[in-house]
Amino acid sequence: MKVGIVGGGQLGRMLALAGIPLGMRFRFLEPSMSCPAAALGEVIGTPYDDPEGLVRFAQNLSVATYEFENVPTATVEFLQQSLGVHPGAKSLQIAQDRIQEKHFFKECGLGVQAFHAVGSSADLPRALEAVGPVGVLKTRRLGYDGKGQRVIRNGDSLESAWIALGKVPCIYEAFVEFEREVSIIGVRTRVGGKPQVAFYELCQNEHVSGILHQTVVPTPEGDRLTALAREQAHAVMERLDHVGVLTIEFFAHGDTLTANEMAPRVHNSGHWTIEGAQTSQFENHLRAIAGLPLGSTALRAPCVMTNIVGTLPTTATVLSQPNAHLHLYGKAPRAGRKLGHITLVG
Amino acid sequence: MKVGIVGGGQLGRMLALAGIPLGMRFRFLEPSMSCPAAALGEVIGTPYDDPEGLVRFAQNLSVATYEFENVPTATVEFLQQSLGVHPGAKSLQIAQDRIQEKHFFKECGLGVQAFHAVGSSADLPRALEAVGPVGVLKTRRLGYDGKGQRVIRNGDSLESAWIALGKVPCIYEAFVEFEREVSIIGVRTRVGGKPQVAFYELCQNEHVSGILHQTVVPTPEGDRLTALAREQAHAVMERLDHVGVLTIEFFAHGDTLTANEMAPRVHNSGHWTIEGAQTSQFENHLRAIAGLPLGSTALRAPCVMTNIVGTLPTTATVLSQPNAHLHLYGKAPRAGRKLGHITLVG
Repeated sequence: MKVGIVGGGQLGRMLALAGIPLGMRFRFLEPSMSCPAAALGEVIGTPYDDPEGLVRFAQNLSVATYEFENVPTATVEFLQQSLGVHPGAKSLQIAQDRIQEKHFFKECGLGVQAFHAVGSSADLPRALEAVGPVGVLKTRRLGYDGKGQRVIRNGDSLESAWIALGKVPCIYEAFVEFEREVSIIGVRTRVGGKPQVAFYELCQNEHVSGILHQTVVPTPEGDRLTALAREQAHAVMERLDHVGVLTIEFFAHGDTLTANEMAPRVHNSGHWTIEGAQTSQFENHLRAIAGLPLGSTALRAPCVMTNIVGTLPTTATVLSQPNAHLHLYGKAPRAGRKLGHITLVG
Repeated sequence: MKVGIVGGGQLGRMLALAGIPLGMRFRFLEPSMSCPAAALGEVIGTPYDDPEGLVRFAQNLSVATYEFENVPTATVEFLQQSLGVHPGAKSLQIAQDRIQEKHFFKECGLGVQAFHAVGSSADLPRALEAVGPVGVLKTRRLGYDGKGQRVIRNGDSLESAWIALGKVPCIYEAFVEFEREVSIIGVRTRVGGKPQVAFYELCQNEHVSGILHQTVVPTPEGDRLTALAREQAHAVMERLDHVGVLTIEFFAHGDTLTANEMAPRVHNSGHWTIEGAQTSQFENHLRAIAGLPLGSTALRAPCVMTNIVGTLPTTATVLSQPNAHLHLYGKAPRAGRKLGHITLVG
C-alpha cells in the first residue's frame, strides 16, 4: 500500500516510521526536498498546489492524508478526484478557519469563549463590545505555534493590532482564565461502514512563547475532565464523519472545558503515544485512513514529553537519562524551531 | 551521523527504523536494490566484497556494522582501514566458524556438546567415535535457519550426509537432549573506554523446520536459568571485547545450558524488544556501536513473537487482535522465507 502525505515535516516522518512496519510505503508532497520525511520515502518537491506536482504525487497512491491543516483547497479537490483523502474536506475546511471552527464547536455542544469576526474596520467596535477589552486577536487562517496572534490588554488598541496582522480576516476572542491546558486525541475509522472510535489519555500541556513545551500523561489531576473531553471530541468526530486522528485543545478551569482549537491530524501533544500507548497516534492514524482496525490506545506507562526547540542537546547527555527516548527530526537548528522531542517513560 | 550496514534485510530495516529517530542516517551494502532496508536509506547494490562498491559504501560513514555474520573477511578488512566496524573482527571470525565457536565457548566456560571436525573422509570414523551414532552434521560456515545441516540417526551413514553437504568442512555434533531452547541477548559498549553491559530477559524459543517460529518472554518457567545465561554471555562478550548486541542460543535441560551458537548481531529472538522492552535491541545495538550510553533493557510487558514464514496473513485480520503489532519486511512471499513477525503484548 502506497500512502501519500501532503507535507514532509516531522509529523510525516513519524507517520512513515509507524507505517513502514505495516508494509506501507510513502510519498510526500513537500517543496523542500531535504525535509524531515525525506529519509523515509519519495519526495515530490513542488509547491503543494502545483498541477504537475499533484499529478506525480497522486500516481498509484492507495490513499492520501496530510500532516498540517493549511493544505490548499485546490490540492484536496484535485486529489479527491482519484483518491480517498482522509480526514475529509469538512474536517479540513473547519480546521482552517478559526471562525468556522468556533461556530462548529458551539453546534457540537462544546464551550467556547466570546468571539467576534474582524473583517473590516467597521467590525472593530462591534468586536470590542462583544468580547471586551481583554482578549486575543488572531488571523482566521494560517496561524500556528502562536504565530499570527496579538494579545490585547486593557487599553491596547485593537485597531493597531489588526493593522500589525496585515488587516487580514481575523477573530477577536475573549481571554480565557484557565488553570491548565489539556488536549484530547481521538481516532475514528469506518471498517466495513461501521465507525470505530478510540481515545488516548487526556494530555496536560504547557506552552512557552506560544509553542508546546511539555505534555504530561496522565495529567497530575487525575482526571475528572477525561469523560467530558472524550464526549465532546466524540461529538465533533461524528458530526465531521471524521476518519483519522483528531485533536482538540482545551482550556480547563474547575469542571469546565473551553475548546480552543482542533487539528484534523496527529498532534504534538500526542508524541508520547509512541512509547506511552499500546499503539501510537501515528500508527492509529494510518490504520484509520487505510480502513484497518484500530489498535489499543491504552496507556502503557506515565510519560513526560518535552519538545526540543531552537537548539539541539547533546545526544549522549539525553540518552544517559534512564528511560529517555530521543526523537530528532533531522532539521537544522534555528530559534523557535521544533527540532525534536524527548519522552521520559515512568 | 551516517551509519553503514552490510546487508539490507529485515534486520537492517529494523535497525534503521530504530536509528532514524536518533538522528542517524543509513547506507546499506546489499546486492539487491529492492531489499527490505531500501525504504530507509541509500543502497549500494554491489556484491559485499566488490572493491568499487566498498569505496562508495565507506564514503563519509561515521561507523559501520552488519546484519548477518557471513560478511566476507575482505569486506571487514577494507572497512576497518578507514572506519570503526562493530562488532569487531574477533566476534565475526568466531561466529563464522562452528568449530572455532565451540572451542571458544569452552574457553569461556560454557557447556557444549561433544563435537568433532570433519574435513576429510579420514575424519568420519574419528568423529563417529568421539560423538556417537546420533548427532547433527553441519557445515562449518554459512549455515542459517537449519540450512547446511543433516540429522544423523542411529544407522545413518555420516559419509552420505557429508557427501550430500558437498564435502565442505563440517562439524559433527552430538544430538542434545533438551527440554527447551532459550536465548540470551546482551549488549555491550564502551563509553569513554569504560565497558557497559546489559541483558534482556531470557527468551524461550520454538523452532519449526529449523526456522524460529515463536519466542515467549518471560519464559513460562520463571526463569532460574537467567543468571547462568547472563553470566555466560557476559564472559563471551568480555573475552571478545564485543561492541554491539550479541545473542547466544542454548539448549536447556534441568539446570544446565548447552551453548548451541552465537550471533554477533541483533537476533530474531529479540524482535519482541521493539514493544516489550524499554529500549529495543535495534536501538541498543546502534547506541553501542555509536559509543552512546545504553538504554534500559527492562521488560515492559510479556510478549509472544511469532514469525510470518512463507505466506502473508491478511493485515486486517492480524490487526483486529487486541495488542497485536505487525512488522512486515517488504519481501515477496516464498516458501520458507521470513516475511515479517507479529508481537502480541500482554
